Amino acid sequence: MDGRAAALDAADPLAHVRDRFLLPEDVVYLDGNSLGALPAAVPPAVEDAVHRQWGTDLIRSWNANGWWEAPVRTGDAIGRLIGAAPGQVVAGDSTSVQLFNTLLAAARLRPGRRLLTDPDHFPTDQYIADSVGRLLGLEIRRVPARDAVAVLAAEGSDIAVAAYAPVDYRTGELYDMAALTTAAHAAGALAHWDLCHAAGALPIELDTAEADFAVGCGYKYLSGGPGAPAFAYVAGRHQQAFDHPVTGWHGHADPFAMSGTYAPATGITRARIGTPALLSLVALEAALTAYDGVAMESVRAKSLSLTGFFQDCADSLLDGLGFTMATPREPGRRGSQVALRHPEAYPLVAALTARGVIGDMRAPDLLRFGFNALYLTHADVLHAVRELRDIVTTGAHRAAAHQQRPTVT
Amino acid sequence: MDGRAAALDAADPLAHVRDRFLLPEDVVYLDGNSLGALPAAVPPAVEDAVHRQWGTDLIRSWNANGWWEAPVRTGDAIGRLIGAAPGQVVAGDSTSVQLFNTLLAAARLRPGRRLLTDPDHFPTDQYIADSVGRLLGLEIRRVPARDAVAVLAAEGSDIAVAAYAPVDYRTGELYDMAALTTAAHAAGALAHWDLCHAAGALPIELDTAEADFAVGCGYKYLSGGPGAPAFAYVAGRHQQAFDHPVTGWHGHADPFAMSGTYAPATGITRARIGTPALLSLVALEAALTAYDGVAMESVRAKSLSLTGFFQDCADSLLDGLGFTMATPREPGRRGSQVALRHPEAYPLVAALTARGVIGDMRAPDLLRFGFNALYLTHADVLHAVRELRDIVTTGAHRAAAHQQRPTVT
Repeated sequence: MDGRAAALDAADPLAHVRDRFLLPEDVVYLDGNSLGALPAAVPPAVEDAVHRQWGTDLIRSWNANGWWEAPVRTGDAIGRLIGAAPGQVVAGDSTSVQLFNTLLAAARLRPGRRLLTDPDHFPTDQYIADSVGRLLGLEIRRVPARDAVAVLAAEGSDIAVAAYAPVDYRTGELYDMAALTTAAHAAGALAHWDLCHAAGALPIELDTAEADFAVGCGYKYLSGGPGAPAFAYVAGRHQQAFDHPVTGWHGHADPFAMSGTYAPATGITRARIGTPALLSLVALEAALTAYDGVAMESVRAKSLSLTGFFQDCADSLLDGLGFTMATPREPGRRGSQVALRHPEAYPLVAALTARGVIGDMRAPDLLRFGFNALYLTHADVLHAVRELRDIVTTGAHRAAAHQQRPTVT
Repeated sequence: MDGRAAALDAADPLAHVRDRFLLPEDVVYLDGNSLGALPAAVPPAVEDAVHRQWGTDLIRSWNANGWWEAPVRTGDAIGRLIGAAPGQVVAGDSTSVQLFNTLLAAARLRPGRRLLTDPDHFPTDQYIADSVGRLLGLEIRRVPARDAVAVLAAEGSDIAVAAYAPVDYRTGELYDMAALTTAAHAAGALAHWDLCHAAGALPIELDTAEADFAVGCGYKYLSGGPGAPAFAYVAGRHQQAFDHPVTGWHGHADPFAMSGTYAPATGITRARIGTPALLSLVALEAALTAYDGVAMESVRAKSLSLTGFFQDCADSLLDGLGFTMATPREPGRRGSQVALRHPEAYPLVAALTARGVIGDMRAPDLLRFGFNALYLTHADVLHAVRELRDIVTTGAHRAAAHQQRPTVT
């Protein structure tokens, strides 16, 4: 398997992109689906933002250093990675907030209908759907992603918005965004997408799929830093009617008139909320330069190569050791992560982390490994699976140190 | 006046605190009420967060570097400056979001009643009140702060929440928080305070005043950096019933169980939303150390000395030059800023900025000068007024360069 890893890495057209990240030498980092690694462009950008922009230029930076335009400028940069033409994406606030704001606005466009969402959706998505439903007096219907197209076709006439993710955050299973969007539209509903586990990981074509709304976070595959600002996509055709609830002054048509009455701006500016967390936003904007000259098709090809190689290594090296593969083996049905089930998932992940192989786990039994094609190699993959094999065969994970669960798992 | 400035500065017990800020040498910065200056503790904290915490420790930082607890830890640090006992303040998200979340939750505690707010409140506060009113089917009544106590006493029985600011963001006029809070309670209503222009500028006693909810921003007097996270205060007695709409997973009782149903955490943790913008939050937390060992009473005493001296200088040096004083002269009726009206406010502020004296303006005719007692001197004040006098007497502000308005004013 060493030879195959070496050959794949030697032929990797994205190999040079690894140098755009500052990776610790003793770590194989397979948790970029939770927090992306540090791009080399970030530290100088943040230092400039702190010392020169904030420290020296002070309030003048709103004009002099482009702070005011940063949410839309960064939004457009993200748009290039998710198939959104300029003027449809804004960056800022947290994913939870963007979910709330866009989902409520979407529901208002189809009054009197229900929300359709996934019982396996990320928790916040479900909590926010419930909250929006309660505020607007709408029922929430939960249907798994794999059944949503059929349900929309058969009984979709009372659905306002279908809110789904293209990639299951636990198993990495990939669903057909275009088909679900088409089915939503055929039922008279709108499609709302959570791209947290997709943006920057695989080609997303929001405009081509005619998606209506989308949100995503900046800190996973986009590597924008811990708690990096999220983003919201509002398709151009909905912007004039985009009637959202968190009406901060940055979305006002004439913010410095300081009017007491909200008059929404035109275009994507309407989706702005309040003053964005600029140090975090500057980091995100700098991080996105890691994608300069990189086609999402190349990212996808390498990602599938990495995840497929991981699955092959697991088949060979972990056979009979209590693991089952939770992620589909068909390339078209998986995102950029691989999840294994094992009854001792938590201590196994803890033991791996202690050896510098960093993944994460989701209760009760899922080991998750995320593959960022910009900075991982096939040699990393092989090393990770070998360490996992060594741990489980030696019982190293049964040491007391690996049993105690920290706050954040 | 030079002698008086020198004497006041020589006797200033907070003079040494100026060294906790990295101020540009050629600037007198009177816009800390919009964006506070850079505290010296921030750059090393941000560099550590970028390089070591994010870059090296990566996802492990959630446990190893206290990321998970940062919103409540930083909230408690802010609580010390606003008279809130620990466990009642959380930091994160933008002021707009915190306003929305807390105002809606407050209104839910008094169903079927109206919202009372200020027609002179900061625009976002008014927009959010309107949005909350629309979502909950509540009427909004607008009554100026100076009349609110009387209105609450006379006809407050249908008021759910009185939402006000202790300091007028334009004129710097200070209102009596305790009296308005008491009047709200007497009417059976709750008091919701926007502390953006008060936190860190003067003593605020949320617990003593029995305030119910409050929000504020981190980037003005608290000097937490551009777009620093906001904060929300939920009085302990309301936490168990705090039923807010932006239900992100960080507020869940057992977030890593990844349940599809929202079960709110106890205590202030319930007011957490999603993953906070950590680089910005780290900057804010470091910035707050500028208050170490500094009593808010000392801040208030110096602030009043600075603003009073500014008013005296203006009386002496700007007399007959077309200015009127918009800020009350009684110390008990002003916050930490002074505003002057002048028909040429915008070009005057532009000309001042060109000379390194930075204030700002609010349309149509207000020049605003904010005084952060931690880093300003009376000599700064005198210099600023002298420059303003020189500009207006020489007509320097009528140069073409000062007439064109940038995006952000």
